[in-house]
Amino acid sequence: MNLKIVNGTILLYADGALKTECRDLYVKGNTISFVPFAESETYETYDAKHQLVMPGLINMHTHAYMTLMRNYADDVCFTDWLFNGVMPIEDKLPVEAAYWTNQLAFMEMIKSGTTSYVDMHMYLKQSGKAATETGMRAFIGRGLVGDDLYTDGYERFKQAIDELEEYQSETCEFILSPHAIYSGSTKLFQQVAEEAKKRGLLHQTHLSEGMTEINDCYEKYGKSPVALLNEIGFLDDECILAHCVQMRDDDIDILKATGSHVVTNPASNAKLGNGFAPISEMKEKGVNICIGTDGTASNNTLNMFREMGLLSLIHKGIQKDPTALPAQYVVQAATVNAAKALHKEDQLGVIKEGAAADLIFLDLRSPSLFPNNNIISSLCYSANGSEVVSSMINGKFVMRKNELLTIDTEKVYYEVEELAKQFL
Amino acid sequence: MNLKIVNGTILLYADGALKTECRDLYVKGNTISFVPFAESETYETYDAKHQLVMPGLINMHTHAYMTLMRNYADDVCFTDWLFNGVMPIEDKLPVEAAYWTNQLAFMEMIKSGTTSYVDMHMYLKQSGKAATETGMRAFIGRGLVGDDLYTDGYERFKQAIDELEEYQSETCEFILSPHAIYSGSTKLFQQVAEEAKKRGLLHQTHLSEGMTEINDCYEKYGKSPVALLNEIGFLDDECILAHCVQMRDDDIDILKATGSHVVTNPASNAKLGNGFAPISEMKEKGVNICIGTDGTASNNTLNMFREMGLLSLIHKGIQKDPTALPAQYVVQAATVNAAKALHKEDQLGVIKEGAAADLIFLDLRSPSLFPNNNIISSLCYSANGSEVVSSMINGKFVMRKNELLTIDTEKVYYEVEELAKQFL
Repeated sequence: MNLKIVNGTILLYADGALKTECRDLYVKGNTISFVPFAESETYETYDAKHQLVMPGLINMHTHAYMTLMRNYADDVCFTDWLFNGVMPIEDKLPVEAAYWTNQLAFMEMIKSGTTSYVDMHMYLKQSGKAATETGMRAFIGRGLVGDDLYTDGYERFKQAIDELEEYQSETCEFILSPHAIYSGSTKLFQQVAEEAKKRGLLHQTHLSEGMTEINDCYEKYGKSPVALLNEIGFLDDECILAHCVQMRDDDIDILKATGSHVVTNPASNAKLGNGFAPISEMKEKGVNICIGTDGTASNNTLNMFREMGLLSLIHKGIQKDPTALPAQYVVQAATVNAAKALHKEDQLGVIKEGAAADLIFLDLRSPSLFPNNNIISSLCYSANGSEVVSSMINGKFVMRKNELLTIDTEKVYYEVEELAKQFL
Repeated sequence: MNLKIVNGTILLYADGALKTECRDLYVKGNTISFVPFAESETYETYDAKHQLVMPGLINMHTHAYMTLMRNYADDVCFTDWLFNGVMPIEDKLPVEAAYWTNQLAFMEMIKSGTTSYVDMHMYLKQSGKAATETGMRAFIGRGLVGDDLYTDGYERFKQAIDELEEYQSETCEFILSPHAIYSGSTKLFQQVAEEAKKRGLLHQTHLSEGMTEINDCYEKYGKSPVALLNEIGFLDDECILAHCVQMRDDDIDILKATGSHVVTNPASNAKLGNGFAPISEMKEKGVNICIGTDGTASNNTLNMFREMGLLSLIHKGIQKDPTALPAQYVVQAATVNAAKALHKEDQLGVIKEGAAADLIFLDLRSPSLFPNNNIISSLCYSANGSEVVSSMINGKFVMRKNELLTIDTEKVYYEVEELAKQFL
C-alpha cells in the first residue's frame, strides 16, 4: 500500500547504533521510503502520534506448530517432556492440525511485534500455506532426520523440496533444516550442506543444546558438536545454529572463523534445565548473535519482548555486571543481527530507503513505557509486547488498532480447542 | 458492590494447591462469597465466559514513586545508577511529584493484574493519598534512615506516623520501613522493632542485596546482615525482608527460625548485577517466599507476571533442573505466600468465603494463554499481563474491559511528562 506515516517517533539504525528520530516516513508498495510522494500519487495517511515506528522483530528460532502443546508438559524433566509430553502428541496429530496451530502462533507473534520468523516444522505444506495466507514473513524448513538424505531421509527431504516449490514467495522462503546431530548422521549433514550450496539455501540446525548431546558426541566422535559440524563443512555464513548453550572457547573460535550465526533461546534453555549460553563470550569474539523463542512447548510464549528482557537480565545476573548485554545490543540482536544471518541486511530489521515495509507501531503512552526517557531501554527492559498496536508486513497491515486483519481468530480458537480436546 | 460472576473459571486454593473450577462466584459488598444472593437482594451480573477469575497479585516490594525514572539509568554500574542516576533526581523532585508518579505506577499495576502492593517511599503523604483515591490496596511506609529514630531520624518517623493517622483505612495500611543496615544504625533498627511491637505494625527493610553491604557488615560488625538483625531482635514473623540475595546456610536457618518473610526481586537483582537469591534453598528449608518487582528504576516494569516467569526460569537454569520452582509454587508465592507475610491469609491472595473481593479477570482466549491446557502453568510461563481485562479491589472495579475507572490517565501522562521535562 501507499502510506504516509506522520507524527511518529522512528527507530533508525546508523553507524552500528539504534537511535530515535521524529520524522515522516513513507511506505511505497511493499518498501520503506524517506522520499515524499509526488503530487500525482495517491496514499493513505497514518497518524503515529505517541507511537514508536520500528522494524518488526525477527524470531530466529521457533516451531510454530507447537502452540497446541503450550503449557502442556511443564515442570518435568527433559526426557518426560520429550518422550511422554511432546512426541506422543506429534505422532498422533493429523498434518492438517498444523494449519490451525500455526495460525494461533501467528496471532501471538503479530500481537507481540514479530513480523518474521525462522521455523523448523514437521507438518507438510501446512506451515507454508498458513504463513502465506496470513502474510507472515517466513523462513521455514522441514526437520530432516536419518542416516542418508537420499534414502533414509528421502521422504522428508522430498517434502521439503515440494514445499519450497509450492509456497516460495516474496514472504516465504525455505531453509534446509537437519534436526540435530543426535537425530541425523554426519553423512546427512554433509549432504544437506552440499544441497544448500547447490540450491543457494540457508541451513539451520539445533546444536549444543544439552549435556547429553555433548557427552554422546564426545563418546561417538571424540570431539565437540561444533568441531564435528565444522569438520564436515556444515558451518559457514549461511548456517544458523540454534541454542549453542554448551560451548568451549575453541568452539566459539570456530563459529567466528566460519561466520556461522547463533540463535540464543534463553527461556527454553532455562526452562528445560539446559542452562545459559555464553552470549557475552561469543559477542566478545565477534560471533553474530540473534534471538529466538523456540517452540511454545518449551518457552511457553512466542513473545520476543519477553525474550529480549530475559536475555539481558540473565547475563547481567550471571556476570554480576549491570553493563552486560545492554539494551542497544539486545534490540539489535532481535532486528539487525537477525537480518544479517538471513542475508537480508538491506531489507529486514531496519528502517531504511528501499527496505521491506515490515513495521510495528508501539503505543508510547502505555504505562509500561512511560515516561519515554529512553525508548531503546524500554524495548528491552519494560515492554511486554502488548504495547504493539499495529503491524505491517511487506507493505500490508496484518494488525491495525489491535485488530488482526488476516486471521479468523474465532475460527482458530475453535479449531485449536477441538484439536486439544481430541489429542491432548 | 453486589455482583454475581457467571460462566467463569475460578482459581481456588485448597490443601496447599491451586486448582481451577468452573462455578459461579459472588461479590457481596467488599467480600467474596460462594452463597447465592437471596431473592430480595439486588446485584449486577458479570459474564466471565472465557475468563479466569483469580485473586489479584500482590507485589511485595516496590517503590511506586520511581516510575518517573523508568528506563532512565540503565546499563550502568550500581554506583553510577544510584549516585548519578537516581539520587540527584530524588533530591530535586518536589514532594507533590509523587502523587502523579504513584498514579502512573497504579496504571501499570492494575493493567498487569496487581491489586495489592508493599511500598517503601520517601514523599510525605502523596503515596497514601494517591493509593486511597485510586483504590489500590496499599501497605506503605516512609523509608527511615539515621542513627537514632527519635533524634536523627525523627522527622521521617514523625512523617510516617502522621501519614498513618491521615490515610490509614481498610485498603491502606502502614508498615515501618527502616531503609537498610547501611543507611540506618543498629540502634535505629532496634527502636523500629520496639515501635512495631508497641503499635502492632509490620516492619520491612532491604537486606543482603549486594556484596558491598555484606562486606561492610562483616567489617563493621563481624557478622552477616541477617545475623546482625537477628541479634537486635528485628527478625520475627511480622518482618518482611526484601532481596536476601547473598545468603549463607546459617542465615537461612535464622530466617526460618524467626519466621521472617522473604521478598525476592529477580529482575532488579539481575539487572543491577547483584545476582540471584538462593530461592530453592530457602524454599527447601521452609522460609516463606514472596515476590516483588522493586522500583521501576531497577526493573524497569511493575509487571508481576513477568516477575513470576523470570523467577522460575532463572532458577531452572541455574540449577539445571526443569522441575525447580514449578508454576504451582510461583503463583502461590505471588498470592498465598504474600498474604501470609501480611498476616491476611483469610483476606488476601485467595478466593474463599469472606475474603476481600480483590479479583482479576483474565481473557483465556488470549493467544498467549491458548489452548488452556494448564491455566496455572500459563500464569507463570506464558502470560505477559495484558490478558488481564478487569480488576476489582475491595469489591470495587478499578478496571473493566481494559478501561481504568479510577485514574484520569490523560492527566497522569501530562503531569508525569511535565515532571520528566523539568527534572530529568
